[in-house]
Amino acid sequence: MQTDVLETIAKLVVEKIQNLENCKIPVGVSNRHVHLNQSDLEKLFGPGYRLTHMKTLKQPGQFAAKETVNIRGPKGEFQNVRILGPLRKESQVEISLADGFRLGVKAPIRESGRLDHTPGLELIGPKGSVTLPYGTIVALRHVHMTPVQAAKMGVKDKEIVEVETCGERRCVLGNVLVRVSEKSSLEMHVDLDEANACALKNDDFVILRKIKAPDPRA
Amino acid sequence: MQTDVLETIAKLVVEKIQNLENCKIPVGVSNRHVHLNQSDLEKLFGPGYRLTHMKTLKQPGQFAAKETVNIRGPKGEFQNVRILGPLRKESQVEISLADGFRLGVKAPIRESGRLDHTPGLELIGPKGSVTLPYGTIVALRHVHMTPVQAAKMGVKDKEIVEVETCGERRCVLGNVLVRVSEKSSLEMHVDLDEANACALKNDDFVILRKIKAPDPRA
Repeated sequence: MQTDVLETIAKLVVEKIQNLENCKIPVGVSNRHVHLNQSDLEKLFGPGYRLTHMKTLKQPGQFAAKETVNIRGPKGEFQNVRILGPLRKESQVEISLADGFRLGVKAPIRESGRLDHTPGLELIGPKGSVTLPYGTIVALRHVHMTPVQAAKMGVKDKEIVEVETCGERRCVLGNVLVRVSEKSSLEMHVDLDEANACALKNDDFVILRKIKAPDPRA
Repeated sequence: MQTDVLETIAKLVVEKIQNLENCKIPVGVSNRHVHLNQSDLEKLFGPGYRLTHMKTLKQPGQFAAKETVNIRGPKGEFQNVRILGPLRKESQVEISLADGFRLGVKAPIRESGRLDHTPGLELIGPKGSVTLPYGTIVALRHVHMTPVQAAKMGVKDKEIVEVETCGERRCVLGNVLVRVSEKSSLEMHVDLDEANACALKNDDFVILRKIKAPDPRA
């Protein structure tokens, strides 16, 4: 009987550890960056220009380009802001809230690609400049994963979860978007404000926590 | 009987709301700033100099001075950094982790006044400059309150609590220090990284959560 109890405890502890292991996600910290479409790339760098691959990013197919642009808002400017490839249908600038104050733009917190009602910015390249009429966002914190990883964690595409961080500035981040696709690599994306507030750096681990649905009987 | 149940529910709901009300704390966002001692003040602004009161801060006796200094690290400099009064025994510079990267100093996350093993910085004033041998910290997030407020929330001086924020970037911040003194005004201090990561601004409210002590029977 005593042995039974010990066995049960051991089994529960192992299950809990496995569950934590299943929900461990490495962090990727995003500094401000720019995505371009072909037309804006050509206005900034010249006709027929192609991005130069500098560094492979963790998400399959994504890369940091050698090229940078300056971004200018009503109140300030950042120089040498990295362009990420490949090209997209629409140009998009991702900044932090802190960057927004320095540029003088009030960018909403958004999922990548949702650009309606977002402020524009001026991009300055070596061969010309572009005034984006819209496209500036603060990225909604999110986790990339494959369908297999999502199944292991018990979550679905577009689900909102919490993520727990460890260390000196530990916290539980709410309102984290899950993005599931075959062409993903497991990674939680946070911006620099979030990384500093939580004292997180690239490849630190965080733990996904499913938000319990309210009990319909409660 | 039915009425009894309804009465009990109503009572519980009111208690819970009162409990939340008791634990509501307004936020104060701190940008980088400098505290000076008399000797450093005189080196920066001239012999016999006195700080000029510009704005009363929420904590009793504290004020933002009209005077500013530049702070310079191995990699960068910030201009016009606000001095907070009154003067202290030791000069101290409070920056964010993001500021630390720009200055090139690795400041630890510390309670104000605990300056052992902290990096120095150069301060530049209108009449001279000072090289602080130590004194640069990233402030440990903390809550100021009076003994009466602490009793209402059921916490003690130096206790570590959690604080829950609301809104688009809601989260639960761990490792929050409680500081109780008669000369306090209820306020949670966060730095700019933390404020932006949580989309908090001055006078937003957060909720203190006591960390439950582990049940000794468990």
